[in-house]
Amino acid sequence: MNRPLAITMGDPAGIGPEIVAKAFRDEPDTLRDCFVAGDVDSLRRAAKLVQEGAGVDLPVAEIAGIDEALAAPPRCVPVLQVVARAPLVPFGRISAQAGRMAGDCVFWAARAALRGELAAVVTAPLHKEALAAAGDAYARYPGHTELLQAEAATHLQRPLAELPVRMMLANDELRTVLLSIHCSLRQAIDEVTEGNVLETLGIMHRSVGAALQRPPRIGVAGLNPHAGEGGLFGREELDIIAPAIARARAQGIDAHGPFAPDTVFMRARHTGERAGEFDVVLAMYHDQGLIPVKYLGVEQGVNVTLGLPFVRTSPDHGTAFDIAGSGRADAASLLAAIRMARRLSQ
Amino acid sequence: MNRPLAITMGDPAGIGPEIVAKAFRDEPDTLRDCFVAGDVDSLRRAAKLVQEGAGVDLPVAEIAGIDEALAAPPRCVPVLQVVARAPLVPFGRISAQAGRMAGDCVFWAARAALRGELAAVVTAPLHKEALAAAGDAYARYPGHTELLQAEAATHLQRPLAELPVRMMLANDELRTVLLSIHCSLRQAIDEVTEGNVLETLGIMHRSVGAALQRPPRIGVAGLNPHAGEGGLFGREELDIIAPAIARARAQGIDAHGPFAPDTVFMRARHTGERAGEFDVVLAMYHDQGLIPVKYLGVEQGVNVTLGLPFVRTSPDHGTAFDIAGSGRADAASLLAAIRMARRLSQ
Repeated sequence: MNRPLAITMGDPAGIGPEIVAKAFRDEPDTLRDCFVAGDVDSLRRAAKLVQEGAGVDLPVAEIAGIDEALAAPPRCVPVLQVVARAPLVPFGRISAQAGRMAGDCVFWAARAALRGELAAVVTAPLHKEALAAAGDAYARYPGHTELLQAEAATHLQRPLAELPVRMMLANDELRTVLLSIHCSLRQAIDEVTEGNVLETLGIMHRSVGAALQRPPRIGVAGLNPHAGEGGLFGREELDIIAPAIARARAQGIDAHGPFAPDTVFMRARHTGERAGEFDVVLAMYHDQGLIPVKYLGVEQGVNVTLGLPFVRTSPDHGTAFDIAGSGRADAASLLAAIRMARRLSQ
Repeated sequence: MNRPLAITMGDPAGIGPEIVAKAFRDEPDTLRDCFVAGDVDSLRRAAKLVQEGAGVDLPVAEIAGIDEALAAPPRCVPVLQVVARAPLVPFGRISAQAGRMAGDCVFWAARAALRGELAAVVTAPLHKEALAAAGDAYARYPGHTELLQAEAATHLQRPLAELPVRMMLANDELRTVLLSIHCSLRQAIDEVTEGNVLETLGIMHRSVGAALQRPPRIGVAGLNPHAGEGGLFGREELDIIAPAIARARAQGIDAHGPFAPDTVFMRARHTGERAGEFDVVLAMYHDQGLIPVKYLGVEQGVNVTLGLPFVRTSPDHGTAFDIAGSGRADAASLLAAIRMARRLSQ
């Protein structure tokens, strides 16, 4: 059975609706069987913005149910109204209303995906402060990942701790999974535990393996400069990371390291000239993994949540309030996220 | 007065002598007025290695004093014997003798530079463990930088603390200065103090400014993910880094930030298509700065020590014991270091 792919519109005061409309405008093949979980009026405003000067008609069609997405013609934007209708929010401003609309789209898409009605969920960017302003039901989530994890745990009637998820960032050259995300660097060091490293390697082995259809070759970064230089610059490699890798290998996981953080990403990089040494790198903290993924430009990066019971990807940029409404937003990362979601859900 | 530039040969069991010989072989113009501070026999062995199959003669000439370097013909390797002669060390093995020879070259070059006899010092890689094995006079230094700093402080009769030095890594696209280097990540966080940030910004302003002949535009990275997200993910940005930047700006230093670490390096990147936003980025710890500098390949990276009373550069790779003696070492980073040293000492 062919199932449609839902794209949540993101914060309507940001560039979310605009890049969604541009994706439908520019790559109708990629957008086949996709629909927007969002607000029809916000998408109409975006479609108007992106067809001006482009010489294309971009009709926005309100659909009555998920199945209608499969019947939409190319270069038409099918939108399922999943939030309460409300006046349009101004571009570039944090508001509780925009935060609530963005959050409601994600709640709706998570529940539909958990009921098995969607092939995958691709989320356009929301604004953390707007989400926080939207009230207690939203404010408890620092971002998409935590919200989706909580919905999945509720649906499966399991405690949150038993549904560990991890963020993977990927572009054409590099895949990296983060051991921790939204916390201080000091806290991130505390999260480098043998259990966390082992659990993350297991998630990577299963999720990246499913995507590649073979066991992934995993490179593990150290925490300290030179991976600790034999204990001279920190002992986490000797006491925590190496034992976790040994336990993972005993479970049949093809993990290697820990390697010097300043070269492991370069070594894993896939280019036209050479295949990288690893399929994916485990980064010990947020910026260790995101600096190399973003260094060549953020347009191509895709964020994938590993460990959820459904496929979820997103662009790796934010709401870009500074250019929202200008028509200058770049849909490349969203398109890459949609392509990745299609591939992972096949 | 034209002064020669000294290249220390590095650990003779590593690739140092080989890349030095290759540099003289491949870019005689770049190597004009350069000589090797090293061991004649080690350089002869290297010259033999790199002329085989290359169809060039690469004579090694022992010189009796620094001035003779200026009279050496192109594609001749002038070597000043600055260490005690000894039997050749085997390739790829850590030894006290090799560590002592490598260290003695650096001591000699530092003292000659401090006496004003050299235009600049370029150091080929030494091996930290070999240096440590060479005895107390060497073992106290984790690497080149600390050794050079100590020699300079002794020469100037100043306490070490009054001669702060910092490591800058640079390639064609990016320059980054590290707030701390050879310590654990946990210790590196403790070194993020207002005094250290301010002192480093001052060194960057003076040294990079001297090289560019104008005040550099400095981007400052945050310590935490998203530069702390307004205090949610750590307070170092609010309590330490931002106040240090404000104080630096009050002193006329063109410093900006703190910015999200995962995008500031990308924003500073100079490419053929666009100039970067900053001339140099201050990184809060070793890997934050080295990951982006090395991501595109280590061949082009140059290490510059800022704050010394003489110009010192080096390639940003190590001794590569695994390929030493094979003739496969790449001299690109050493050549980039020599070019940088020439530019900085003009």
